[in-house]
Amino acid sequence: MTASATHDVLGIGNAIVDVFAQTDDEFLNLNKMAKGSMSLIDTARAEALYLSMKGAVEVQGGSCGNTVAGVASLGGKSAYIGKVRDDALGWTFRHDIRAVGVTFDTPPATDGPPTARSLIFVTPDAQRTMNTYLGACITLGPEDIDVQQVAGASVTYVEGYLWDPPRAKDAVRKAFAAAHAAGRKVSITLSDSFCVDRWRDEFNQLIHDQIDILFANESEILSLYQVKTFDEALQRARATGKIVALTRSAKGSVIVHHDEIHVVDAAKVAQVVDTTGAGDLYAAGFLYGYTRNKPLAECARIGGIAAGEVISHVGARPLVPLKTLI
Amino acid sequence: MTASATHDVLGIGNAIVDVFAQTDDEFLNLNKMAKGSMSLIDTARAEALYLSMKGAVEVQGGSCGNTVAGVASLGGKSAYIGKVRDDALGWTFRHDIRAVGVTFDTPPATDGPPTARSLIFVTPDAQRTMNTYLGACITLGPEDIDVQQVAGASVTYVEGYLWDPPRAKDAVRKAFAAAHAAGRKVSITLSDSFCVDRWRDEFNQLIHDQIDILFANESEILSLYQVKTFDEALQRARATGKIVALTRSAKGSVIVHHDEIHVVDAAKVAQVVDTTGAGDLYAAGFLYGYTRNKPLAECARIGGIAAGEVISHVGARPLVPLKTLI
Repeated sequence: MTASATHDVLGIGNAIVDVFAQTDDEFLNLNKMAKGSMSLIDTARAEALYLSMKGAVEVQGGSCGNTVAGVASLGGKSAYIGKVRDDALGWTFRHDIRAVGVTFDTPPATDGPPTARSLIFVTPDAQRTMNTYLGACITLGPEDIDVQQVAGASVTYVEGYLWDPPRAKDAVRKAFAAAHAAGRKVSITLSDSFCVDRWRDEFNQLIHDQIDILFANESEILSLYQVKTFDEALQRARATGKIVALTRSAKGSVIVHHDEIHVVDAAKVAQVVDTTGAGDLYAAGFLYGYTRNKPLAECARIGGIAAGEVISHVGARPLVPLKTLI
Repeated sequence: MTASATHDVLGIGNAIVDVFAQTDDEFLNLNKMAKGSMSLIDTARAEALYLSMKGAVEVQGGSCGNTVAGVASLGGKSAYIGKVRDDALGWTFRHDIRAVGVTFDTPPATDGPPTARSLIFVTPDAQRTMNTYLGACITLGPEDIDVQQVAGASVTYVEGYLWDPPRAKDAVRKAFAAAHAAGRKVSITLSDSFCVDRWRDEFNQLIHDQIDILFANESEILSLYQVKTFDEALQRARATGKIVALTRSAKGSVIVHHDEIHVVDAAKVAQVVDTTGAGDLYAAGFLYGYTRNKPLAECARIGGIAAGEVISHVGARPLVPLKTLI
């Protein structure tokens, strides 16, 4: 047995502040934004767009950031590693993530690009148009990994998006080595099907060599194995021998690990309002259960409940403490 | 190896003429019908309900009758054993089932109750509610089983509904013994959740002792094991060690056999018009594939295609030769 854990889940991700503002179609047209899309933008455009946002609301976001916040909301102990700058948005990120109970001690960058942000314009028709600037995230590297912290976490969980900035994958490899040296587990979410398309070979090698728990939605796992049907992807995923949790939106999730397999229904949701964060919160619930030695079907059930809460309203953060739902 | 087969699938079932009519929820409520269920009715209610049906269409039906007709439509060789009376509906049944290429040689009863009929009310939500008068079916017994015919069929397939008439189950046991003595396979569909409720213990014993291939939809398998979630039922079904095909409507099907498991999507259907016969045609497609030594995932895919065709229009019979779709 390994030593008792300081944290249940340590997440490593792109530290992004979500900046929400109401706008209108004319603004989108004027700024050449395709309504409903996500675009990567540079510093100049980020600064210009940010200045144009009136009555903006800023909240800590990022895929993995949502997951560790979800673990905390469930009553688990979580920590986060991600790079912000020592600027106003950086302090917002730090304040928010700590306020929900997540340990966050990564030192902010004192020079270089500003804190990453996703500028989210909400039109009266409830559509969200996102413009993401990676900023300080590109400076995350192995020096930001506290190996003692990693060794004290039951699971180290990372987002596939970390393969996009130049040095973050080296940070991940350092963390995974430290985790396994301490007898801990490591986990990844494939993040999105375009991300998988960019890093397919590296992801397959990483899963084979290191991953204990893999999260993917249907389009991501089809992309990873370049197959057309869910069952083909399932057979390939099963052959990895890893714990694989495949999320299927309204069809629930399928969990496979060696000879064990579960087909778990989605939680009942009265109305699906905004699917942002569904996968992030599913991972939170699953890992919360996993780090409490729950059976895999129960992990999936908790994941489904957490995801079900977050898609029932706007925003990627639970509106009620998730521990009250499970 | 066993001798080459005379038939791919020999079905034994309640030989029923389907009488279809469109209705609404109010009619179901007024007549105390549980939507989606199959109720057994007596002669008096059969006559009263029949009088209330406007624009009724009559066609050879019966769950197992639909399946063997489906096998024939796919290009397979099928035969049927079931009891009609020597009356007008009995000749309708015999004519229709032979017209699609199914071997049907069971002698009609020359006295006793008239040919069975199922009064099927289709609501605008594509659900079908069945009221079945078993009539001549109650006379089916071991003397109707042609053991040579059974020995010549790759799979002998029966419907759980056969447990309702008094002596049909003895016919099934005789047939299963003959099939296994000839090195053939035997299969059952659980038919409906109320049927399972009536015969749960006998079905569990039968599955354990004899069945090679089990078909059930979600409500049937939940009823069989008296569990609340699909995954619990799946684990129980898997533990039988038999080939189990679990159908889940729009969620597709899950096939399990020892260490093998497949999660197969439903075929795309432009519009679901009438789900009558979906399970029957799924079994037809699956067994068509199985008797051609296709992999289980492929059997499920063919089953899904056959089911998808039959739910895209009113009635439990394909409107196009299924062999043109696979």
